[in-house]
Amino acid sequence: MKINNKHYRTIWPDPENNQLVKIIDQCRLPYNLVIKELQSLEDAARAIKEMQVRGAGLIGATAAFGMYLAAHDGPQEEFDNYFAECGRKLISTRPTAVNLAWAVNRQLKAVAVENSLGARVKKSFQVACEIADSDAGCCRRIGEHGLELIREVSEKKKGGTVNILTHCNAGWLAFVDYGSATSPIYAAHRQGIDIHVWVDETRPRLQGAKLTTYELLHEGVPHTLITDNTGGLLMQRGMVDMVIVGSDRTTHTGEVANKIGTYLKALAAKDNSIPFYAALPSSTLDRETHRGEDIPIEERSPAEVLTVQGLDQDDLRETTVNITPPGVKALNYGFDVTPARLVTALITEKGVTAPNKEAIEKLMTFCEVSGFPGQAGE
Amino acid sequence: MKINNKHYRTIWPDPENNQLVKIIDQCRLPYNLVIKELQSLEDAARAIKEMQVRGAGLIGATAAFGMYLAAHDGPQEEFDNYFAECGRKLISTRPTAVNLAWAVNRQLKAVAVENSLGARVKKSFQVACEIADSDAGCCRRIGEHGLELIREVSEKKKGGTVNILTHCNAGWLAFVDYGSATSPIYAAHRQGIDIHVWVDETRPRLQGAKLTTYELLHEGVPHTLITDNTGGLLMQRGMVDMVIVGSDRTTHTGEVANKIGTYLKALAAKDNSIPFYAALPSSTLDRETHRGEDIPIEERSPAEVLTVQGLDQDDLRETTVNITPPGVKALNYGFDVTPARLVTALITEKGVTAPNKEAIEKLMTFCEVSGFPGQAGE
Repeated sequence: MKINNKHYRTIWPDPENNQLVKIIDQCRLPYNLVIKELQSLEDAARAIKEMQVRGAGLIGATAAFGMYLAAHDGPQEEFDNYFAECGRKLISTRPTAVNLAWAVNRQLKAVAVENSLGARVKKSFQVACEIADSDAGCCRRIGEHGLELIREVSEKKKGGTVNILTHCNAGWLAFVDYGSATSPIYAAHRQGIDIHVWVDETRPRLQGAKLTTYELLHEGVPHTLITDNTGGLLMQRGMVDMVIVGSDRTTHTGEVANKIGTYLKALAAKDNSIPFYAALPSSTLDRETHRGEDIPIEERSPAEVLTVQGLDQDDLRETTVNITPPGVKALNYGFDVTPARLVTALITEKGVTAPNKEAIEKLMTFCEVSGFPGQAGE
Repeated sequence: MKINNKHYRTIWPDPENNQLVKIIDQCRLPYNLVIKELQSLEDAARAIKEMQVRGAGLIGATAAFGMYLAAHDGPQEEFDNYFAECGRKLISTRPTAVNLAWAVNRQLKAVAVENSLGARVKKSFQVACEIADSDAGCCRRIGEHGLELIREVSEKKKGGTVNILTHCNAGWLAFVDYGSATSPIYAAHRQGIDIHVWVDETRPRLQGAKLTTYELLHEGVPHTLITDNTGGLLMQRGMVDMVIVGSDRTTHTGEVANKIGTYLKALAAKDNSIPFYAALPSSTLDRETHRGEDIPIEERSPAEVLTVQGLDQDDLRETTVNITPPGVKALNYGFDVTPARLVTALITEKGVTAPNKEAIEKLMTFCEVSGFPGQAGE
């Protein structure tokens, strides 16, 4: 997608020097666009750990390129042991990120069959590029499927503005390109459908206020920032036509784990008969967990609640402010689970499905058998 | 209630010099406890306008004392015209505050029957003190009625901790003393009931993070700050036993207008079978509006959403930070309306009532006829 009218992905190999992998440092957004170079496994591990890159899809792609950089620096002898150790280092940076281990294991498997260092480097580069392209491709197809849902609303409203509410940043910055929840929005905007996005600021880390607004500004998509408290009133007043959020993990029974606060918006959508969609690559589906309450919920640092980071109005320095009196304790859960009964449908790269076991299974099986575009590996 | 173990009200006449009225400057909380002196009508008007005082009850009391200070400075001749003009000045500071006009009119009426300047000053002082005492008394009785609801839960839990979620600051800082939503909490704490309060931070102005935590810290009530996004998950997990919020206006049909975001918590409470109470002095009842959607909703400055005020972590200066990229627009509604169907009961100074026309009317009529403690004017 675009920043200052130039197309970017969140990660890419330097076309003139393959040994450099570039990323957008998301810790500096939205105030500064800083491109960082990853030159080694250690650089990639640090970028993931310090959240210069974030979001399921992007973490996976960064790990894949990290393994490629590791292969570059690898020994002629005992390569396999060395490479496996590199994988363990990467996985330990954010142990709960499913895509991270998946990308590392894919690299290990692919490279194991090669016999020379040159061939290993070449193969690992190819796999990293495939993983990045596949992530972008999945997100693009989520956009195509979600676009039809937006088009339906637009037609019902006879071309009137379609108001879409989203929570957190399930945007292109969380993937390699396009995003999950934002992908249908970008697709609709490109088709000339009149849309407007309500952006939940998403405390505590303010990914909505900082990243989603940044994306939408640079793509020219009309949007308005609101506090996380506001969506309910807007729905009561008929100011929201549909809700589209991302998902960090969705059970094969249709329970949607996503950024904390998503559940509250799903309740309000239900109460006001507004469709509520979760957009996700099928790699986010959890085929082992049946019940929403069995999804583990990450507890993060209370400091994220007790403080806010922003730009000092006076001197424009990046500044952290305390928002409470001294001595206050805080609790900081990262996610909540929206029950399937509140979800209208899931938008995946394979199509749109009702949020129940049978429908999800049918869509996934059909695609795997028929070679429907969008299966893993593309 | 207490700050640093000393008892305070939010407004009081200096016991040694009645011509000085003192307030806690709430713009400086929670970082600095600054007591300001009001010496004139202009001082009182400024305090209301700049939100050094805020909250329905406290605005009314400040207006009453402002009229008293005006009487002090009044002319011997043509006093009534002068005094009416003073009232208009006060009312114009925050034209939507119902208690403001009510307090001003009560002063005009009371003073009109006096014939000397001395008698007018004396009477207006007496009325201001009565209004302040009445506000504190109403809130104290809200606490007594609400206490019984908390005690029931405590007994059901066999003395286990009662977890109460509250939104915004409906605390003693919004009234003269005790508060509305917090009054039952303070009463229960004083009775030795084991309670713990989940404090919604309440963006955009963060009254929960700044004022409610400040009150609870100084009263020694166990509490934990959470983002506005978190309450739903806590309810799903059985970590909330009851919700108590305040109300800025409740229709006589039981629709509760309160700080934006209240509706989302009411939905979550309903979804998890958790009782949801609104605590309010009966002066907050709107006997003319029938439907929640007819309550006008104040739209405030987008700057409140685009920025956060806090204490710079490095140099401890009071600082405002921008949280978005430049060019982002925001919408900032101050309130939402929780439908009566989501409200378990209203806690008033006259007792606890179901949120419907018949029950509310019955409670109010019974009290007015029988002289039940707590009618207006006490």
